[in-house]
Amino acid sequence: MTPALRALTPAMRDGGDDVARASSHAGARRATHHACKGGKITGAPMVYVSGEEMTAYVMDLILTKWIEPHVDTRAWERFDLRAKNRDDTEDQVLRDVITAGKRLKAIFKEPTVTPTADQVKRLGLRKSWGSPNGAMRRGWNGITISRDTIHIEGVELGYKAPVYFERHAVGGEYSAGFKNVGRGKLVTTFTPSEGADAGKTIEVDARDITDAEAAVVTYHNPYDNVHDLARIFFGRCLEAKITPYVVTKKTVFKWQEPFWQIMKKVYDAEFKQKFVDAGVVKPGSELVHLLSDAATMKLVQWTQGGFGMAAHNYDGDVLTDELAQMHKSPGFITSNLVGVDENGVLIKEFEASHGTVADMDEARLRGEETSLNPLGMVEGLIGAMNHAANVHNVDKDRTHAFTAHMRKSIHELFREGKGTRDLSGPSGLTTEAFIDAVAERLDNH
Amino acid sequence: MTPALRALTPAMRDGGDDVARASSHAGARRATHHACKGGKITGAPMVYVSGEEMTAYVMDLILTKWIEPHVDTRAWERFDLRAKNRDDTEDQVLRDVITAGKRLKAIFKEPTVTPTADQVKRLGLRKSWGSPNGAMRRGWNGITISRDTIHIEGVELGYKAPVYFERHAVGGEYSAGFKNVGRGKLVTTFTPSEGADAGKTIEVDARDITDAEAAVVTYHNPYDNVHDLARIFFGRCLEAKITPYVVTKKTVFKWQEPFWQIMKKVYDAEFKQKFVDAGVVKPGSELVHLLSDAATMKLVQWTQGGFGMAAHNYDGDVLTDELAQMHKSPGFITSNLVGVDENGVLIKEFEASHGTVADMDEARLRGEETSLNPLGMVEGLIGAMNHAANVHNVDKDRTHAFTAHMRKSIHELFREGKGTRDLSGPSGLTTEAFIDAVAERLDNH
Repeated sequence: MTPALRALTPAMRDGGDDVARASSHAGARRATHHACKGGKITGAPMVYVSGEEMTAYVMDLILTKWIEPHVDTRAWERFDLRAKNRDDTEDQVLRDVITAGKRLKAIFKEPTVTPTADQVKRLGLRKSWGSPNGAMRRGWNGITISRDTIHIEGVELGYKAPVYFERHAVGGEYSAGFKNVGRGKLVTTFTPSEGADAGKTIEVDARDITDAEAAVVTYHNPYDNVHDLARIFFGRCLEAKITPYVVTKKTVFKWQEPFWQIMKKVYDAEFKQKFVDAGVVKPGSELVHLLSDAATMKLVQWTQGGFGMAAHNYDGDVLTDELAQMHKSPGFITSNLVGVDENGVLIKEFEASHGTVADMDEARLRGEETSLNPLGMVEGLIGAMNHAANVHNVDKDRTHAFTAHMRKSIHELFREGKGTRDLSGPSGLTTEAFIDAVAERLDNH
Repeated sequence: MTPALRALTPAMRDGGDDVARASSHAGARRATHHACKGGKITGAPMVYVSGEEMTAYVMDLILTKWIEPHVDTRAWERFDLRAKNRDDTEDQVLRDVITAGKRLKAIFKEPTVTPTADQVKRLGLRKSWGSPNGAMRRGWNGITISRDTIHIEGVELGYKAPVYFERHAVGGEYSAGFKNVGRGKLVTTFTPSEGADAGKTIEVDARDITDAEAAVVTYHNPYDNVHDLARIFFGRCLEAKITPYVVTKKTVFKWQEPFWQIMKKVYDAEFKQKFVDAGVVKPGSELVHLLSDAATMKLVQWTQGGFGMAAHNYDGDVLTDELAQMHKSPGFITSNLVGVDENGVLIKEFEASHGTVADMDEARLRGEETSLNPLGMVEGLIGAMNHAANVHNVDKDRTHAFTAHMRKSIHELFREGKGTRDLSGPSGLTTEAFIDAVAERLDNH
């Protein structure tokens, strides 16, 4: 174990003592309960990445009250990705997360803080450690970031039926080379390293910059893993029986054509007939392309849901945030990075779409009542636990049954008006009371 | 007059005969009416660009019944930008539009068709003439495309108060150099043409392309005219008393920083105090920046309206379509290209945000009743007529009074439930009956 790899227990963190005390009351009953059913579920190996602020507090409670009583999590590898620990380890902890993720294939990540200049000062950090997303996408050969609407039967959020989204995890301006310049000449060349023209340099673009102040930008879109993205996307849409759409700006940004062509090729060869057979699309209908600007309109119009969209990286960034807001808030949308190891096994990292909810944490620390809806994080945890059980073939059936029951218990409480206050209104439960209410249903199952 | 410049009269086009007949009945009364008020308004010189299909049919009726009886339009220069005429003139007509626009500064444009492969065949065209937008933006030194919500007092559309949008008219991937490539090396260099490093080539970016299929892209953002964009944007927001926001992705796309810096500099130096004095923002408050992904969420959340956003070209493309859909449809949002001539005089081109409404045109040609809401086009025509009167100082007061009355008459009818069916429901008026109803109010003024 490297110094950066710290097997955190909830009690090691802020508020942990209270948590330990609070959970001890129910301990005896829980143990009995599980003895009847053949003991605790064996949690499959997975990576658990902890963050900070309100969401870390809530996940500590959930682990203590929902998970630990029923699941033996000793095979989980835990990492502390708080800004302070990234600073202390000079980001070795992030590199360890990536190595462990490659090995275990299933990762759950709590929201983390990307420190502002202010926080760097206050926390005494050496620097502002950037978002870990880029390193994770590269480290796990990211294919897609799946972001789907979360639904609670009987509770209206935004879209009536599910909306699935695949955002290409690589390419676009995120890894652009750039420079802010004045007047001059910009030249871009490409030299193939294979094929008939190997070694022959050609000019991609040459232009005069005539403004005193300008930005020049170069980037590339790698398209090889779009085949995988297509299979993931169409497979998921087919299973959910929703209509897939491919979104690009290819009529104007003509270099995006391969994205559409690859999607269409995979669809026609492997999925077209299956979508017809499943009754999702009409016989003879073709895969539909949407322009990115039109897609922003469809997200507003198609409130009935029941569709999927796949898009380039930046379009996906922008469109999925619109999707989140149309579906009430980022609390009700998943965020799931899908990558692949060298043997073709999918690596899946699950997280909530929201941040650390710092303002609620401040209220809590002032002693005020809070009411955080943990559904987004719990959907992430469910995803990671299920994927871990599947990929390692460890206690699969009982894991799936347990996570399904956890989801069902949460949904029931919301339907009964005993959810958190974002959905159940002022008479809804506090953060802690809601967690206790779910825990009770899990214990009494 | 070049062959491409055709002084179209409505009667020269499809349906024109009917129009001429229909309008002749009211002719006598109209003439009398205007004689009492000192005769027809003198229409200031402007460019009128006609298009095709349903929207051309409607604008013919409007010109005949609303405009010609009250305005002497002999100083208007008319151009026929139908695909067929662009083909016949080998696009000389578009070059003529641009030359005339530079001279007259005020342009109204009907929706035009960008022919599909199918239409190219059916219309017997030599090629698919692309969108004229790029040529117009370049030809008139485009600064911004302003897209604002259109409101009818007493009728609910989307946003309660106005939303203004400035989309930078240049830069971004629209004029990118690109190539679809395989494996190899991509290198981008820049050679300044002035300053201490003039002639010294530096490397902007060098990267290995490792995918068998990839796209490489280079573009630049010119920022010199962002100062003008800032003045147009803040000036408009101040006049409407709405809060301005600047939208970029600069935390990740760091080359976009100058866009924000220039906006902020102009705001602080020339507008900050004025916004405070006008009571739009609180004393001491700073100009607010929004990330582009967050902006998609604000457009969904801030349904009360009363704000403005300014963004880069592509972000503006995507965000304004979302804005249009949130405000019911592209029928209720303006589209106004603002450029500048060599003397600093603003060139303004006005159009509707919607297309030619081809399906409604087909219904009409089958003899079915239609009900097209002309408000988006009429707002464009009003904008062009007012700007022409201002810039040429021709019959300004009477022009503004007339266009205001035209707008008021339309709004009144919608409030009375006598609008077109998109807003007034099945009991609303047909295309033709609505135009007649407005004409009557204009005549009886």
